[in-house]
Amino acid sequence: MTQPQSVGVVTAQKAVFDQPISLACGTTLPRYELVYETYGQLNADKSNAILICHALSGNHHVAGKYAETDKATGWWDNMIGPGKPIDTNRFFVIGLNNLGGCHGSTGPSSIDPETGKPYGSRFPLVLVRDWVETQARLADSLGIDRFAAIIGGSLGGMQALRWTISHPQRVRHALVIASAPKLTAQNIAFNDVARQAILTDPEFHGGDYYEHGTVPRRGLRLARMLGHITYLSDDGMGEKFGRLLRSGEYKYGFDVEFEIESYLRYQGDKFSTLFDANTYLLMTKALDYFDPSRDYEGDLSKALAQTAAKFLVVSFTTDWRFSPSRSREIVKALLDARKDVSYAEIESQHGHDAFLMEDPAYHGVMRAYLNRIAEEIAR
Amino acid sequence: MTQPQSVGVVTAQKAVFDQPISLACGTTLPRYELVYETYGQLNADKSNAILICHALSGNHHVAGKYAETDKATGWWDNMIGPGKPIDTNRFFVIGLNNLGGCHGSTGPSSIDPETGKPYGSRFPLVLVRDWVETQARLADSLGIDRFAAIIGGSLGGMQALRWTISHPQRVRHALVIASAPKLTAQNIAFNDVARQAILTDPEFHGGDYYEHGTVPRRGLRLARMLGHITYLSDDGMGEKFGRLLRSGEYKYGFDVEFEIESYLRYQGDKFSTLFDANTYLLMTKALDYFDPSRDYEGDLSKALAQTAAKFLVVSFTTDWRFSPSRSREIVKALLDARKDVSYAEIESQHGHDAFLMEDPAYHGVMRAYLNRIAEEIAR
Repeated sequence: MTQPQSVGVVTAQKAVFDQPISLACGTTLPRYELVYETYGQLNADKSNAILICHALSGNHHVAGKYAETDKATGWWDNMIGPGKPIDTNRFFVIGLNNLGGCHGSTGPSSIDPETGKPYGSRFPLVLVRDWVETQARLADSLGIDRFAAIIGGSLGGMQALRWTISHPQRVRHALVIASAPKLTAQNIAFNDVARQAILTDPEFHGGDYYEHGTVPRRGLRLARMLGHITYLSDDGMGEKFGRLLRSGEYKYGFDVEFEIESYLRYQGDKFSTLFDANTYLLMTKALDYFDPSRDYEGDLSKALAQTAAKFLVVSFTTDWRFSPSRSREIVKALLDARKDVSYAEIESQHGHDAFLMEDPAYHGVMRAYLNRIAEEIAR
Repeated sequence: MTQPQSVGVVTAQKAVFDQPISLACGTTLPRYELVYETYGQLNADKSNAILICHALSGNHHVAGKYAETDKATGWWDNMIGPGKPIDTNRFFVIGLNNLGGCHGSTGPSSIDPETGKPYGSRFPLVLVRDWVETQARLADSLGIDRFAAIIGGSLGGMQALRWTISHPQRVRHALVIASAPKLTAQNIAFNDVARQAILTDPEFHGGDYYEHGTVPRRGLRLARMLGHITYLSDDGMGEKFGRLLRSGEYKYGFDVEFEIESYLRYQGDKFSTLFDANTYLLMTKALDYFDPSRDYEGDLSKALAQTAAKFLVVSFTTDWRFSPSRSREIVKALLDARKDVSYAEIESQHGHDAFLMEDPAYHGVMRAYLNRIAEEIAR
């Protein structure tokens, strides 16, 4: 086996869609753009394409760098590349920024051609099923009729799952990682606190802060701090930070006392300068609304009855945002519907974030499953 | 057994302390007041007194009403009264508002006699050990040398535990309910998000909002919403709210969609008009700093070696703020120190909030243990 490598320097591309799209919320977008990246080569019969769906704060820059000198890589660079579990010597991998995003695809911060101003509050809510439709159109534009696999973690896993229902014949394999069939009340509650932090920020201006020259940075910072708590496990946080003090002594004030405070504030500060608050709101709503069983009397196995894909479901032991029991709900519904499903529950300290980490057991499962797919399409 | 009754109409009292107190943070308060209530009669040898220590948002109004026509009762009215588990026919029960509170005891919103203005940012941080000292002085003023029991849930349990270390001879029994020997990184993380919500609220004005005629209501509201998530269990929230929609249909907007959002926002709104933000900050810091093992090389059993009380430790199965394993840490340390400890782990759906609820198994344990105390002091 050759040493795994990076996909190297990559360039983002843009696809323009002039055919209007009717969204689940009832609004029609006349026109939109999606930015995307590809890694590897599409084979002659276009059977080796893999779509990577991103989670709440992800984007199209999944692997590689934009310049040789860049230190930062794409968000799933450890998973994708020549010789990596998702091997770009064998697969043609597509990453995109979802509609409503803030990394180049049409979203709330884009200019609305009708007004010449950023959409802001006029940008519609976009649901997981809408993303699937836009992704299908991107596939059409690339001439891809059927994906070898659609892969996503967290909210990305929900997109993979939705694909198998919306377009059964276009997905050979769905890899649903650290995900859930729908949010619990507690999941929604955390999302709502995050949203309220943004919505009540005086700089939010009802979503039209672009025109006011402001940014609801305080709200977005709080939302991200809170999010981070749910991404990490109690144990993992304990092991990494515990009650470690910044200075070794109690200072009895409101500056950073404990290292965990420093970590969270840093993460919040950084995110609040990089991400768009309206996109954050939109992403959390897509999470809340996701529930494919809803059109099937709450029965997920009925929703999955029409699927034709094979499934790999992966969960992580200390993930309490979307715990293993949530993944097992998906597995059970698939089994009830007599579908082909493999399930891996990975021992990890890293909570929900584990799906982004390089872990031998996790990457081993992914590598083995992707090998199976490669062999299947080579037949 | 007679039917349990309410303690009826009660009146708050005020104790004034003119002897300065040196706080753990290094500041000396020259003078302070504590409001408190008492229920039942102190017996001749003053051996039947019970102190109730409150949690983050609690106060001195523990049982009864202020007027016959009041609908609201004290926060632990189901536990305290004639014929109730903490039986006021047998015990003299004291509830107080801790120093730094916002219900009548000296706190950040009180007038600083030196300046004639509210303390605000000039009010010092108060630690659990400081509260114990002020409570001891209150006991002195009432002629109570030794408590039959000191009882508290959550942060209140930490005070009961601290009492046994600071004043071993003054506590016959300590009842430590739904508590923890110290916060984890995750606990501190949630507190810090809540604090950052308040501290970054533009109406906070560095803690001196009283002088600006503002209230950091948005921040306090977010803090309380977040708090509520940690008080309830995922299961309990699921059972009560699930994915219930306010209107039965998705509205695709940022108003309330799910009932859980309605509940949280209501709780946050209500709290933000009733509670003082500086007190909230102070209470969360007292939680963060609490760690009696810190003066004993991190060994809780060493910290407890000097205690002379008997202990009842109670936890609730679905409490994830201070889970049963945290209570078991206290029990283990007490056993290691060869102390007399009883432990009850109560099956409950109600998460951390279970300590405030009327549950037959929980109240049965409390009743039986309090009976034992009553018999002990009658000997």
